[in-house]
Amino acid sequence: MNLKYYVGIDLGGTFIKGGIVDSYGKIIITKTVLTQSDLGNNKVILNIVNLANFLMSDARKKGISSFSGVGIGVPGIIDSAKGICICSHNLNFKNFNIAKEIQQKLNLDVKIINDANASTLAEYYYGAGKECSDIVMLTLGTGVGGGAIINNQLLLGNCSAGAEFGHIVVCVNGKKCSCGRNGCLEQYASATAITNLTKHAMQNNKQSKMWEVGSLDNVTAKTPFDYKDIDTIANDIVKDFIFYLSVALTNIANVLRPEIIILGGGVANQKQNITKPLQEIINSQIFASNQTPKVKVVTAKLGSNAGILGAVCNFFQK
Amino acid sequence: MNLKYYVGIDLGGTFIKGGIVDSYGKIIITKTVLTQSDLGNNKVILNIVNLANFLMSDARKKGISSFSGVGIGVPGIIDSAKGICICSHNLNFKNFNIAKEIQQKLNLDVKIINDANASTLAEYYYGAGKECSDIVMLTLGTGVGGGAIINNQLLLGNCSAGAEFGHIVVCVNGKKCSCGRNGCLEQYASATAITNLTKHAMQNNKQSKMWEVGSLDNVTAKTPFDYKDIDTIANDIVKDFIFYLSVALTNIANVLRPEIIILGGGVANQKQNITKPLQEIINSQIFASNQTPKVKVVTAKLGSNAGILGAVCNFFQK
Repeated sequence: MNLKYYVGIDLGGTFIKGGIVDSYGKIIITKTVLTQSDLGNNKVILNIVNLANFLMSDARKKGISSFSGVGIGVPGIIDSAKGICICSHNLNFKNFNIAKEIQQKLNLDVKIINDANASTLAEYYYGAGKECSDIVMLTLGTGVGGGAIINNQLLLGNCSAGAEFGHIVVCVNGKKCSCGRNGCLEQYASATAITNLTKHAMQNNKQSKMWEVGSLDNVTAKTPFDYKDIDTIANDIVKDFIFYLSVALTNIANVLRPEIIILGGGVANQKQNITKPLQEIINSQIFASNQTPKVKVVTAKLGSNAGILGAVCNFFQK
Repeated sequence: MNLKYYVGIDLGGTFIKGGIVDSYGKIIITKTVLTQSDLGNNKVILNIVNLANFLMSDARKKGISSFSGVGIGVPGIIDSAKGICICSHNLNFKNFNIAKEIQQKLNLDVKIINDANASTLAEYYYGAGKECSDIVMLTLGTGVGGGAIINNQLLLGNCSAGAEFGHIVVCVNGKKCSCGRNGCLEQYASATAITNLTKHAMQNNKQSKMWEVGSLDNVTAKTPFDYKDIDTIANDIVKDFIFYLSVALTNIANVLRPEIIILGGGVANQKQNITKPLQEIINSQIFASNQTPKVKVVTAKLGSNAGILGAVCNFFQK
């Protein structure tokens, strides 16, 4: 393979992270700028274009003169084939042809991809899933994002709207979700959900040791994990989180039967605190557990540059 | 394409259906024999071989002299790549290399496939999904079987254990399932489940109009549908069935985002009685329903020969 160089862009609600990545997945340089989505779509495009030009100019100083494309990860519903962001609440995009806008300004091939799909591709090529052909990834952050690789191909679904693992119902008639359903995983296993559930439990239990954090404002998704061994309220929150997440993961495993489930996002920093109990439940609950290979549960290996890397990996897919 | 001819075998617990199928999916002849699985694995293999030989001999009388392979649909967990039936409760098979056994006796290429996957392939090539690249199929019969086509490829998953849609939990802490979980779809939406739920409801409601069937022995999955417009007990059973099935179908749709969901098996004979209410719920509940294309819910188009056809379609997949 001839070594090629790509611009990778991880477009977030607050920051745009960019990097120059080679075709072996090595990140040569990175730079982060503000998104400024409040200043309108055109300003966001301009910020991406300026960042890409800055990165390419910097790379030229290192002797890299030719670039094969720009990959962009976007939070929202993306029609990858058409290069359109159908909608993104974080960015106020609606039916916006990001790919075309940037292609015109940079004169390079542009591919856009959903940000959770980008992280999934990065873990598949270079992270926890690099030995696998079938992987599932969930990012437990503000929301619950998802991506999957089936038979070495990214699972997109019609209009690239598949792999919405956050919107699997884990508790029928449960908590109202922003998507319109009741009892979605996102309402039980996102960092936001854990934080809210913890605050609610603390308000009802003034004797909880978690009050050592001072006030409810200091509560994060990490709080119940910090106190689970010394506080029953905290322990119950962690147990419920594990239970509902295990329901969703077993459902997903029975549908897609990956070799591995990779957990990313802030909550995955808990590592064995979450993978160990989840692995035990899934081992016993998965369909035909005695006759079929296990589905391994692990945490993501790549750090904050996974988004940049994954946006570029989109060029490696057939 | 040169016209080729295949032997298609639909291996069931009681009957083996066989046929000669051409590469356009036309079924030339069919014949059904007893499975006789109580007489052991070798007897089942012999019955398949004799059936295949009979069919080929009959086809030769019609001038068909060359056969390109034998496709077999098997109820159970199948490792298609290795040609092994990992386990089949209906047939008492365990780690049984069906493909090799038959290949040796017929000297033809043999491919085996899970029976629900076979039906899915048949609907994809020749039935309700023939215009689509992404389909999901559920067969609502004795159990709940499943299959899916993603980006024109059969979804197998590791060890071909994917698409087990019957074992998605739709009611957390619900009814015990044979798979070990609680609250699986199969316990709410199979013909067996509907029949049992109906009998149970009738026992608790001696005034139900469904008692017109005479005795509990005459109750089938059709009974509540026959009485739903004149009996509230029957109507509640149908409503619960639709509700739980809609939870699973929306979950599946949020994971795979097919263009179409095809319902097969005996319960699907209810046609619009089930597709109409399911379509309404899924339209409103699916993720990003306002921004993305609808997922159509339909019933299967192919009849009892779908198994034969699908076993042969396995030769058409890359």
